Amino acid sequence: MDETWLPTLRTETPQEGYALSIKLARVAVKMTQADPAIRDDLCALYEKDADALIAVSSVVATHFQTVAAANDYWRDK
Amino acid sequence: MDETWLPTLRTETPQEGYALSIKLARVAVKMTQADPAIRDDLCALYEKDADALIAVSSVVATHFQTVAAANDYWRDK
Amino acid sequence: MDETWLPTLRTETPQEGYALSIKLARVAVKMTQADPAIRDDLCALYEKDADALIAVSSVVATHFQTVAAANDYWRDK
Amino acid sequence: MDETWLPTLRTETPQEGYALSIKLARVAVKMTQADPAIRDDLCALYEKDADALIAVSSVVATHFQTVAAANDYWRDK
Amino acid sequence: MDETWLPTLRTETPQEGYALSIKLARVAVKMTQADPAIRDDLCALYEKDADALIAVSSVVATHFQTVAAANDYWRDK
Amino acid sequence: MDETWLPTLRTETPQEGYALSIKLARVAVKMTQADPAIRDDLCALYEKDADALIAVSSVVATHFQTVAAANDYWRDK
Repeated sequence: MDETWLPTLRTETPQEGYALSIKLARVAVKMTQADPAIRDDLCALYEKDADALIAVSSVVATHFQTVAAANDYWRDK
Repeated sequence: MDETWLPTLRTETPQEGYALSIKLARVAVKMTQADPAIRDDLCALYEKDADALIAVSSVVATHFQTVAAANDYWRDK
Repeated sequence: MDETWLPTLRTETPQEGYALSIKLARVAVKMTQADPAIRDDLCALYEKDADALIAVSSVVATHFQTVAAANDYWRDK
Repeated sequence: MDETWLPTLRTETPQEGYALSIKLARVAVKMTQADPAIRDDLCALYEKDADALIAVSSVVATHFQTVAAANDYWRDK
Repeated sequence: MDETWLPTLRTETPQEGYALSIKLARVAVKMTQADPAIRDDLCALYEKDADALIAVSSVVATHFQTVAAANDYWRDK
Repeated sequence: MDETWLPTLRTETPQEGYALSIKLARVAVKMTQADPAIRDDLCALYEKDADALIAVSSVVATHFQTVAAANDYWRDK
């Protein structure tokens, strides 16, 4: 995780901002669990688990608040 | 998910903003679980589960905060 | 749900704003689970479940943030 | 719940604002579960349950954000 | 809890603000469960429970948002 | 925890702000559970638990909101 993966919070459109929010939600998992094999097991697991999917969706929503504010809600589009 | 599904956060009314928030909550699930058959199973499951329904409602509430701010709370209506 | 149920986020008082927040929390459940019979079962269930009651209370709190901001916290009262 | 219980979000001090946040967290439970006997059972239950206590604490935190903002964080004190 | 425990949300540094957030998270538990013996049992329990620790951490994060805003994010330091 | 670990919320880049958010999420656990041996057990446990990883990710998201606001969303970069 040494390379630059988050140079800015600005995106062209709300949709790109939403995609960035999903990325932000995933990176925390990546940084907490460094072993890719365990991460893959976890992913296979929670992708079939409604509760986990909703919980991920909640984290995405929180990040989307941040990204949307950073872009002034794309009001000038 | 390549087409444009979120061109703007602006809506005419609070009610349309609320509908957009529900959409925003659902898209994260869609993007995390790509297989539509599994998604359908999950939906059937959590629609009968009070905890899951409340959790979805919580994600909608977070998105509604964002959408409402993006629309200046529809104050000029 | 075709009729207008959310024409505005403005309320006269904080207390009316709180009542609106409860409504906003409930509508997401209504929209996710269209069958009223299942909804009634769920309601009976979670009304006796402390965890579910607290979870609903959390969703109400998030909506109350939005409604309070929309009303400038009723500062001019 | 017909009488006025929330005339304003303004309080004299942060501590009074915190007390108001606890009240706001409790009212949602009261409004969702109208039967006082069941409410009492629930209270007895969750007061011994660490998870429920933390969940209540989370709702209080969300309301405290709202109340603090409504009071401009008591900056002029 | 009659004495003054929260005279202000202002702190000198972000670190003191973080400590205040932990205090704010704990007080809600204290106020909900008045019996110190039960509170001690609960503490012993949840201090060994990862989920509870993370949940407490979440409440601290919410309070830290409030305290940071109250201090204008300590921008003038 | 007596030394200074949080002198400022300002960071040079969003990515550094994200790293700070992870730190903020971890410190609350550290402060709640003082025994390092128990903390290590907990870490080993929740690093293999999808739900816990998502919950941590949620706390990081909340802190990232605070840090991003403190840095004006790094808009001048």
